[in-house]
Amino acid sequence: MHPVEGTKSTRLMRHIDGHASEHWDTLAEEAPLEIKVSHRHPKTDLLIEEPLAVTMRTPGADQELALGLLIAEGLIENVDAVERINSAQDDSSRITLHLSHPPLRSLEHRQRGLYASSSCGVCGKADLAQIELPESPTLDPLAPTIASATLLQLPNTLRLHQGNFKDTGGLHAAALFDCDGTLDSLFEDIGRHNALDKLIGNAAKNGALPLSNSILLLSGRVSYELIQKAAVAQVPIIAALGAPSSLAVELAQHFGQTLIGFLRENRFNIYTHPQRILSSNE
Amino acid sequence: MHPVEGTKSTRLMRHIDGHASEHWDTLAEEAPLEIKVSHRHPKTDLLIEEPLAVTMRTPGADQELALGLLIAEGLIENVDAVERINSAQDDSSRITLHLSHPPLRSLEHRQRGLYASSSCGVCGKADLAQIELPESPTLDPLAPTIASATLLQLPNTLRLHQGNFKDTGGLHAAALFDCDGTLDSLFEDIGRHNALDKLIGNAAKNGALPLSNSILLLSGRVSYELIQKAAVAQVPIIAALGAPSSLAVELAQHFGQTLIGFLRENRFNIYTHPQRILSSNE
Repeated sequence: MHPVEGTKSTRLMRHIDGHASEHWDTLAEEAPLEIKVSHRHPKTDLLIEEPLAVTMRTPGADQELALGLLIAEGLIENVDAVERINSAQDDSSRITLHLSHPPLRSLEHRQRGLYASSSCGVCGKADLAQIELPESPTLDPLAPTIASATLLQLPNTLRLHQGNFKDTGGLHAAALFDCDGTLDSLFEDIGRHNALDKLIGNAAKNGALPLSNSILLLSGRVSYELIQKAAVAQVPIIAALGAPSSLAVELAQHFGQTLIGFLRENRFNIYTHPQRILSSNE
Repeated sequence: MHPVEGTKSTRLMRHIDGHASEHWDTLAEEAPLEIKVSHRHPKTDLLIEEPLAVTMRTPGADQELALGLLIAEGLIENVDAVERINSAQDDSSRITLHLSHPPLRSLEHRQRGLYASSSCGVCGKADLAQIELPESPTLDPLAPTIASATLLQLPNTLRLHQGNFKDTGGLHAAALFDCDGTLDSLFEDIGRHNALDKLIGNAAKNGALPLSNSILLLSGRVSYELIQKAAVAQVPIIAALGAPSSLAVELAQHFGQTLIGFLRENRFNIYTHPQRILSSNE
């Protein structure tokens, strides 16, 4: 058994209609990645290395994940700030990004509480006052636009390309499309935020930021943090197969983003800024 | 519009088969809760108050959430350690638990990295070495048992009682059953870990820990952290409607827990310790 990257094989007992039998099956891989950042002190030239986070992620696109996390969290503005990325050959669980300048936000400043756990990214910040919003992106309120018929095609395209989900049933996806419905990139991860970090990190590597002409498609539900990350990357339209949270809707409203939920074969809901969606029969 | 606790109303534009119309709809509420712990210094009697976490959660059962988080994270062993819980009347976003003794684990010891974001609970811990496992629960390898026919009924029971999910499509659930399939308790939250924390906190309040004769049903996918929390509460059987991750399977194997995934109308997969599931036609 040689499972593809991001998956693992397992032996299991399958019960169907009362009959049990043994099978091999494929699981979505979940494994820790420790992300560190380093830089030279501007005056003393001493090397300063700090742990940033340990995240449980699905292995694959680790550099993109780390890069996207730093950008989405406002520690760096773009990929130019990263002089090199060290991933140990023999240890895929650690990655260090060496920056050309100190992080734009002090790590101590946003010191987290200790035991947070939530599917949301503000969890663990040690004080409510530390839940900061990124500056509002400068989005054109009227552009881009997408035809509703094009929008309705996106889930199909996602499904066709989401290989590891098909095998495991256990991965979230984040995909970037242009307004003609052409797929630009797709990342999968056991954590929905990781999938989006990978997508943003990949765009940064390719010099594609800001993503102000793109549509972001999310395979699941939409929490506050996904909207926040998309805002940093200046994504104007976010569509999800699942439900948005109350705070996701409030933030998208605030940032001027068009937020779509429950995108299905023949229907969708527009929660905010509907002017970017053109009815196909108009 | 007076939405029930944990939900919010929103105005949206619904497109169906090319026709757009305006509607009111219900969203799962997502809002921050800051959790602090305090205790008297054993020698000086000075009051020591420390921020533990800010978690994004669906309001409702906040005391249970905070209590469950402290227990699942090993800061206290049971509810007896909590002398009082202060929730400000006019501010539902803050809660303080006053303990009769210092937390069993030092908060500094597990200082987190700063910007972690993932749907997993080890995210943000500042060093890989800090991803600690709870001690293995002392589970009876042969008990309890549940008939597969009973197991297959659980998702229906969950669906019947999961009121806010029905309205919003945006909430995770964690439910506790006995081995006859009787529902004991059910909690919903936008974060899957929060739903489980609420369930564990509620059990603690009712003096029902350890949960060594219960079955935990999870509405979604199973990550490493859910297994870890269930292990602390000594849950022997965990069943999920969705897929488990690779690490969830490894941990359940290690802890001696029976892990079931993809529980559907007529089928399920057993990943670990299948001896607790009795084929109904045996």
